Amino acid sequence: MKKGNKYGTHRVIEPRGTLPQPAVKISNDMDIFDNEILIDVDYLNIDSASFTQLKEEAKGDIEMIKVKIMEIVNEKGKMQNPVTGSGGMLIGNVEKIGDSVKNRVNLNEGDKIATLVSLSLTPLRIDKILDIKPDIDRVEIEGKAILFESGIFAKLPVDMEDTLALAALDVAGAPAQVKQLVKSGNTILILGATGKSGLMCSYVAKKFVGKKGKVIGQARNETRAEFLRSTKFCDEVIIVDVLKPVEVLEETLKVNNGQEVDITINCLSIPNTEMSSILPVRDGGLVYFFSMATSFTKAALGAEGVGKDVTMIIGNGYTKNHDQIALDVLRESKILRKIFEEKYIKKEL
Amino acid sequence: MKKGNKYGTHRVIEPRGTLPQPAVKISNDMDIFDNEILIDVDYLNIDSASFTQLKEEAKGDIEMIKVKIMEIVNEKGKMQNPVTGSGGMLIGNVEKIGDSVKNRVNLNEGDKIATLVSLSLTPLRIDKILDIKPDIDRVEIEGKAILFESGIFAKLPVDMEDTLALAALDVAGAPAQVKQLVKSGNTILILGATGKSGLMCSYVAKKFVGKKGKVIGQARNETRAEFLRSTKFCDEVIIVDVLKPVEVLEETLKVNNGQEVDITINCLSIPNTEMSSILPVRDGGLVYFFSMATSFTKAALGAEGVGKDVTMIIGNGYTKNHDQIALDVLRESKILRKIFEEKYIKKEL
Repeated sequence: MKKGNKYGTHRVIEPRGTLPQPAVKISNDMDIFDNEILIDVDYLNIDSASFTQLKEEAKGDIEMIKVKIMEIVNEKGKMQNPVTGSGGMLIGNVEKIGDSVKNRVNLNEGDKIATLVSLSLTPLRIDKILDIKPDIDRVEIEGKAILFESGIFAKLPVDMEDTLALAALDVAGAPAQVKQLVKSGNTILILGATGKSGLMCSYVAKKFVGKKGKVIGQARNETRAEFLRSTKFCDEVIIVDVLKPVEVLEETLKVNNGQEVDITINCLSIPNTEMSSILPVRDGGLVYFFSMATSFTKAALGAEGVGKDVTMIIGNGYTKNHDQIALDVLRESKILRKIFEEKYIKKEL
Repeated sequence: MKKGNKYGTHRVIEPRGTLPQPAVKISNDMDIFDNEILIDVDYLNIDSASFTQLKEEAKGDIEMIKVKIMEIVNEKGKMQNPVTGSGGMLIGNVEKIGDSVKNRVNLNEGDKIATLVSLSLTPLRIDKILDIKPDIDRVEIEGKAILFESGIFAKLPVDMEDTLALAALDVAGAPAQVKQLVKSGNTILILGATGKSGLMCSYVAKKFVGKKGKVIGQARNETRAEFLRSTKFCDEVIIVDVLKPVEVLEETLKVNNGQEVDITINCLSIPNTEMSSILPVRDGGLVYFFSMATSFTKAALGAEGVGKDVTMIIGNGYTKNHDQIALDVLRESKILRKIFEEKYIKKEL
């Protein structure tokens, strides 16, 4: 077997010397190197920002989305959206394990795993797209993928459906980081609280701020607000357009005795929401951007522009034990598990 | 006088309801609102990432850069680079102070100030570009600008030249944030340590890590490395191409007993250096991106892709008292002051 680099640089075709994620093109030749794991893929779970962009470009036409996905993968050797730069994750069975990792990794051929590294750096070959489920950002395929030695993964648990675990693992970075950041007594604003990562973050935030703390969830309309209220994850629910930062600030102040919050967590998947995240936070507070649609410069210059001394954090998709934290959240909360089962799992017809 | 909004939303022409920074077009009518300050502008100090882009687009032709700047300001009502999204700052004299802020701000008409909010949100009218100094990213103009009520500024100090103070204030966010983040005993890698913000950060980092800590400065070639060694700000200097993350990691390990660092500070102004910042940091460590060329998704997905549990911070241009911290650094360090005077100040011919 050929010897590979820990970070997968041996797969990079263009430009040479970079890592697989920033690379424009990587090799999706399925003859594995000694430190790689070959996966027989069942599904891709496309990153929400990426899927939204694909749907918009294709004007909702599923066949057009299929064509676009095949184009991207054939050109780049990976499913990295050229507009958003983001990827997603996949689920499949271990088909072959490279010689040099065989004894170092807790895996056997045949195991069902979810890769927790982004599709934006995962060598992928699609032989056929079987189906697309646009409501759950899922693409069912026949194809193969490669996991590098440094690539993180999760064995799928036995106490829940694969599809349920996958839905949780897809946003696993968010609840794990929220757990680290949030302190007892904090007031937290969650933008996009009714979405998949938003619901997880709301639940985890409420758990860790405790009774003296407050979680404020943002919803875009009354229907979603009513749904969010029914979960009881948030102390307050505000209905406001996230593209209007001054209104987001005003609605937040209204439900928080005129005070700014300690932390904003941005779980949206639409662009231009940096200022709506920054304005409601107190000086010395914290903004956590989990949205892949965040612009670095808009955040940096935006905070400066309004003279806000806030710490702004780039949501890292990986945090130690994030897979276990996300799965445990679903084990703990019956309400959340029910929502995930109803909204984010493929329905058998 | 017309009543204005604290954050300047009354100036936004397109799209309505947004703040001046993300707006595509704002009003540069110089008839001020009651909470605005009118400034007679001497110079613009263009953000380094923006100026690099302008120079490249114009292939170094100064007259072409002038045309491009006039085009941008006439179209947007502000000097916001359409490619990088970034701005810069300006220096000028207070010409008029709006009625509602007159008694709340420590300023008089005639005072010389530097605006510390980005040009990317500052209403600006250029009547004439007098000169461009490409080596110091400076544009000398005849024109006027507006400072909003929420806009931060610094009165220029009497114990140093205006141009020297401006050079320091332009990168004031970086040393102030480094001061907050760095702890005694830390090992710090500074990418772009030979540049303006890099030198400031190196000095401040060394001061706060103390004798038990270590500052490693990156330079791109031997000439720059020699210059950096001569400052004695860094314990170690490495020469490496920042576009090659694996090499950056290896060079860092070589001078740090095979150990990863606690913190990387990215002071570069070129794109695609996210992974070079992330790879050398230990799990649980911190990456501080001061570079305006940083891509949010490349950072977020990059860390996940290599399974790194690091906290990544978006450099905020504003931190409490950052103007005083930056000026004090120049007062403290004769070496740094000399470098700033030699490299970043307009030379009278």
